[in-house]
Amino acid sequence: MDLQPIIWVIPAAGILAIAFALYLAYDVLHRDTGTEAMQEIAGTIFEGAVAFIRRQYQTIGLLALGGAVIIGAVIALVETRQVADTQIYGLDLGIRTGVAFLVGAACSMASGIIGMYISVKANLRTAAAARHSLVGAVQTALRGGAVSGFLVVALSLLGVFGIFTAYGGFTHPEQAPFLIVGFGFGASFVALFAQLGGGIYTKAADVGSDLVGKVEAGIPEDDPRNAGVVADLVGDNVGDCAGRGADLFESTAAENIGAMILGVAVYGIASAAGWDHPEGWIFFPLVVRAFGLFATIVAMFFIGGREDEDPMNMLNRGYWVTTLLSVAGLAFVTWSMMGTATQSGANGIPVWVWFFAAGLVGLATSVAFVYLTQYYTAGSYRPVREIAEASKTGPATNIISGTAVGFETTALTAITIGIALFLSHWLGQQANLVNSATGANVGGIFGTAVATMGMLMTTAFILAMDTFGPITDNAGGIAEFSHAEAGAREITDRLDAVGNTTKALTKGYAIASASLAAFLLFSAYIDKVNLILGNQIAAGSRPPGTLLASVNLADVNVFIAALIGSMLVYFFSSLAIRAVGTTASAIIVEVRRQFREMPGIMDYTQRPDYARVVDITTRAALRQMILPGSVAVATPIIVGLLLGYEAVAGLLMVGTIAGVLLATVLNNGGGAWDNAKKYIEAGHLTDEEGNVIGKKTVAHAAAVVGDTVGDPFKDTAGPSLHVLVKLLATITLVLAPLFIR
Amino acid sequence: MDLQPIIWVIPAAGILAIAFALYLAYDVLHRDTGTEAMQEIAGTIFEGAVAFIRRQYQTIGLLALGGAVIIGAVIALVETRQVADTQIYGLDLGIRTGVAFLVGAACSMASGIIGMYISVKANLRTAAAARHSLVGAVQTALRGGAVSGFLVVALSLLGVFGIFTAYGGFTHPEQAPFLIVGFGFGASFVALFAQLGGGIYTKAADVGSDLVGKVEAGIPEDDPRNAGVVADLVGDNVGDCAGRGADLFESTAAENIGAMILGVAVYGIASAAGWDHPEGWIFFPLVVRAFGLFATIVAMFFIGGREDEDPMNMLNRGYWVTTLLSVAGLAFVTWSMMGTATQSGANGIPVWVWFFAAGLVGLATSVAFVYLTQYYTAGSYRPVREIAEASKTGPATNIISGTAVGFETTALTAITIGIALFLSHWLGQQANLVNSATGANVGGIFGTAVATMGMLMTTAFILAMDTFGPITDNAGGIAEFSHAEAGAREITDRLDAVGNTTKALTKGYAIASASLAAFLLFSAYIDKVNLILGNQIAAGSRPPGTLLASVNLADVNVFIAALIGSMLVYFFSSLAIRAVGTTASAIIVEVRRQFREMPGIMDYTQRPDYARVVDITTRAALRQMILPGSVAVATPIIVGLLLGYEAVAGLLMVGTIAGVLLATVLNNGGGAWDNAKKYIEAGHLTDEEGNVIGKKTVAHAAAVVGDTVGDPFKDTAGPSLHVLVKLLATITLVLAPLFIR
Repeated sequence: MDLQPIIWVIPAAGILAIAFALYLAYDVLHRDTGTEAMQEIAGTIFEGAVAFIRRQYQTIGLLALGGAVIIGAVIALVETRQVADTQIYGLDLGIRTGVAFLVGAACSMASGIIGMYISVKANLRTAAAARHSLVGAVQTALRGGAVSGFLVVALSLLGVFGIFTAYGGFTHPEQAPFLIVGFGFGASFVALFAQLGGGIYTKAADVGSDLVGKVEAGIPEDDPRNAGVVADLVGDNVGDCAGRGADLFESTAAENIGAMILGVAVYGIASAAGWDHPEGWIFFPLVVRAFGLFATIVAMFFIGGREDEDPMNMLNRGYWVTTLLSVAGLAFVTWSMMGTATQSGANGIPVWVWFFAAGLVGLATSVAFVYLTQYYTAGSYRPVREIAEASKTGPATNIISGTAVGFETTALTAITIGIALFLSHWLGQQANLVNSATGANVGGIFGTAVATMGMLMTTAFILAMDTFGPITDNAGGIAEFSHAEAGAREITDRLDAVGNTTKALTKGYAIASASLAAFLLFSAYIDKVNLILGNQIAAGSRPPGTLLASVNLADVNVFIAALIGSMLVYFFSSLAIRAVGTTASAIIVEVRRQFREMPGIMDYTQRPDYARVVDITTRAALRQMILPGSVAVATPIIVGLLLGYEAVAGLLMVGTIAGVLLATVLNNGGGAWDNAKKYIEAGHLTDEEGNVIGKKTVAHAAAVVGDTVGDPFKDTAGPSLHVLVKLLATITLVLAPLFIR
Repeated sequence: MDLQPIIWVIPAAGILAIAFALYLAYDVLHRDTGTEAMQEIAGTIFEGAVAFIRRQYQTIGLLALGGAVIIGAVIALVETRQVADTQIYGLDLGIRTGVAFLVGAACSMASGIIGMYISVKANLRTAAAARHSLVGAVQTALRGGAVSGFLVVALSLLGVFGIFTAYGGFTHPEQAPFLIVGFGFGASFVALFAQLGGGIYTKAADVGSDLVGKVEAGIPEDDPRNAGVVADLVGDNVGDCAGRGADLFESTAAENIGAMILGVAVYGIASAAGWDHPEGWIFFPLVVRAFGLFATIVAMFFIGGREDEDPMNMLNRGYWVTTLLSVAGLAFVTWSMMGTATQSGANGIPVWVWFFAAGLVGLATSVAFVYLTQYYTAGSYRPVREIAEASKTGPATNIISGTAVGFETTALTAITIGIALFLSHWLGQQANLVNSATGANVGGIFGTAVATMGMLMTTAFILAMDTFGPITDNAGGIAEFSHAEAGAREITDRLDAVGNTTKALTKGYAIASASLAAFLLFSAYIDKVNLILGNQIAAGSRPPGTLLASVNLADVNVFIAALIGSMLVYFFSSLAIRAVGTTASAIIVEVRRQFREMPGIMDYTQRPDYARVVDITTRAALRQMILPGSVAVATPIIVGLLLGYEAVAGLLMVGTIAGVLLATVLNNGGGAWDNAKKYIEAGHLTDEEGNVIGKKTVAHAAAVVGDTVGDPFKDTAGPSLHVLVKLLATITLVLAPLFIR
């Protein structure tokens, strides 16, 4: 096939981004590694993180291998003829799906491992740089984080493009997207366990060592006498870096595939109308992402500024450069790929302009979520102040107030998502992409796909900012631990505060993109079900006119499945939260034992056995991730087998809504609790006479309780829900044939 | 029309139940009123409660009057011809709807006011009886509670039957149900504000006076020196009695109407087939309820036992008598009313047997929920023990553990509801009630209606047990306050513990019935929309074949509305929880002022100004109920106007699912926290060496925090969500014409 030349931008951008990531890694690794004391603790963190990741990914790898075999076998046995004219079904389809699953899993694991490796190296360099320069420390941390960001986006781009090509995408572009859904499922599968295991590890270590150190033994946070402290620092890396990397890898992969499946419908219209390069509508999502990568690479050179500048400004500058360049890239791509349409949309406005506008809606949504999250979790606004005020009357009112804030955050979140969906769907409809056979206007749904793609153009930069968080957090721990000069600790504290904000922003961004993507992915599910039903109708094994026209909530099975989907979100979160508690107890018991049996720890004459705590946490976290992970995978399959394919769609859609909202509650509630504590520590809370209520007061103790409660909410259950939502989408996409009888 | 004689059971049962309630009230009021000290404090509580209720119902009455006028006007203006052949539309329909709304509101207010009046009188008699006899105290409290129970069910039965008759139900039974939906809306409207205002009042008084008394001043709970204590005791009555009464009045009214609307579909089939008394299918729900009343009246005479018996056993005996008699009643009603069908269901089994089985599913579901709630909230099982254990490491782990338990409770709840829906729908389908014109089997949906009716047969008894809770709680407060003999306080403590369990059970029951009813009510909504669309098609103003066949979640507007519906549930709860905080702050400020300015309070030489706190709480609670109430009413209307009638159905269904699950989390989480505290206070928690960890320990302090957090969850937000869910259903049923263009 004579492909549109712009399509070659996809592999080019992927390779360029990997090369750039290697350059960044080289740059970071060759920076100053600080004092010997710093190197020692950094080495200990590195060892712990590598030990956890090795064991975790061994477990996940085995699970993925088993998963691939089972999925391949199931698909092969179901033997539903998926694509009639290419005869890809039965064993062939099973093998292809299994292989795609494994490649998706492998890419996801690779991006998680490499990203974490660099970030554990970057923390030491950031601490070292902080002894001399704020700008240098910001650059080191962001570049270290950017390695993850670029690798994740580039690997998902290359992976999808590669499997697509290997499965005949250039000869039958309209069929290949359905063959590569296994790739997205593989990525989701790994992401689920990576995020769960890492999330449980990081928060159990945090909560456990705080409770036994700060509360019981009365020693400060990050104090070297606490045997759990190294596990806590390891946790930042394995949870925040590796987990979030896998999460966003999955987003980009699953959403690319979903958008490509929707592109198939437009491809049909474009072919029928004889437009040039109809395959462009399928490749469009990948090309947009490629331009997002270019924008992010350029933005990396804009990071810098004065020594006395707010580090958040430096990052914001980079984010805005990425966003503005993405607008330009989006305009160019829509114009060059959709300008081939020989018809006009509503009011004579060209088709590409309507979709460019839909893409802008996506970019604007991403900006809106950045500011929305700031409002709800940053100290200077009403919600955090309200929680801090409520802390004056103790932990109970702190928790009540934080819960009210967490619940409240769903309002603007849902309204913003609703507006984005409505607008992008409406704009897409104006393009008038009507299927002449069925009379259906597929532009609306493709408009939401374009909006999702627009939103995800900035993913690499957002992910770099996110990984910036744990790197600076670790740098602070290293500075504290190695008794670095006060100036260094001051700089890492400033960076850490910024890191808290960027971590919260990423979660808002991840949730918003997950919900836009969800609508796109279950449209893809309906398309896939109808492809199978259509083939069965054509083969005479199903009566004509029985396509899945709607997902009817008034059907009792769909309603029950919707109820189960919503319940799954709570039940899964319950298991994840409880897992943190169980693992934290194991840590508390061990640290207590060390305090008791090694009396020299308290006067610094004995070194605590950090490695043992790391080991105990590792084993407990990995054991605890299995149950919630299995429940998440099994529920949609069981419901599908019992209640059928339409009911599964109900589970998927309503489960997504429930998951997005509960994740919002947990993420933003947790973030607000965290910052209410910081608000009090910074001395902003005052009594009626204007006296500062700071540390060591009832209010501060109450705020610490809120912060601790928020930890498993915002760093274990919330992010795991992002993954769950997308897993539901990919699992149902892949196993759709199983639910059709 | 020559009516089936059994139909006259409906008004007979209603009148009998009212007479029986009067007898119970007479009996309670003539019991011993105890010492002068008891009478004094009881009088103060009575005054406070009456003052609150008077002001609250004045406000609600005005709101209802305004609501009736607006709704009547809107319906009149929309002028949709609803029932073509009777010419009831425009102004006539508007007036009828407005009047039905007002009658529903008035009945709901009457049952709330009278029930509360008796319960505020019964608390003193219960305290007095407790000086001599456990059995006497149980009987007094349960009979006091039963006045509410009987009045609520009887008034809803008579109200629906009366309006139905007045609106031509005997001449055109197939049209009248659609004309009386305003009655259900009026009931929901009052219930929403009654539950919100009462719920905010009771928990603000509870939290506020605990924080300022127990935590700040270090005096015991219910101590007369605390100026907030009377407000706390008043709160039990206005929140738990009046609020729950209005809640269940609404349930019974809305569900009766919904079931009757579904009965219209069977009426059509029965008429076409020429069965005797086809109108019986419409009256069936009311007749079943009448037999439920008979069962409950008989059960009241089985309350009694030995002095040393567990009071919960006495109540359980009554509950089981009600349930078994209900089974017999259900068999008789289905046999006599549905035996008229001249066809058989599947396997030659008579139609009535299938529906009898569906009704049994409903009764079984109600029993299942009673035990399910006990498992999750009673001290002897794993969940509460887990929270108590977690309290050892402080408030943070207590909150984390309680949240995990609350989330977990959704699992069995959703699965039980799912099974009940599936089974009752399947059983109903086996009856083969097929509309010969459309080929639709309406038996399935009518099966779920019969299950709901079966479940609600025991409502009067459940409500009596529920009101038993605040009466015994108050009796305990009166005993403490009046320094009654130790034996009396011991008996009221035992009753109070039982009351906590029965209150939790009622909430589980209310949630389960709300979710079964929800499915029934939105089936009624679809029927009503199709009635209007059908008339428009017949009138030529709408193209043929455009009936609402499904509520399609894959439609972008439906999906957005579903998202908004789920969000509403969180946002509404956030407002309700925050209202408790705001009102509690007002109480804290006032009690602190009294401690400061009236130094004689602490050494009992000065009497605190109880009335002022009651007054402040009253005004604050009433002000705070307006915003959440208005949001709940406005959201479905706005969504309906913007996105249309199919989208509203999405909001209704998914909002119901979200509301049922969040209410489960809040109710059961709150109940488990409460009982974890009681578990520790009872000395069941031990350390590793087996020493009891009781009051005045870190664990107990942590459990008190959890209990306080749970208060607004389980007594304000949770019960208000029950009402919200049903309000969504009635508001959309009434305003359906507005959403159709």
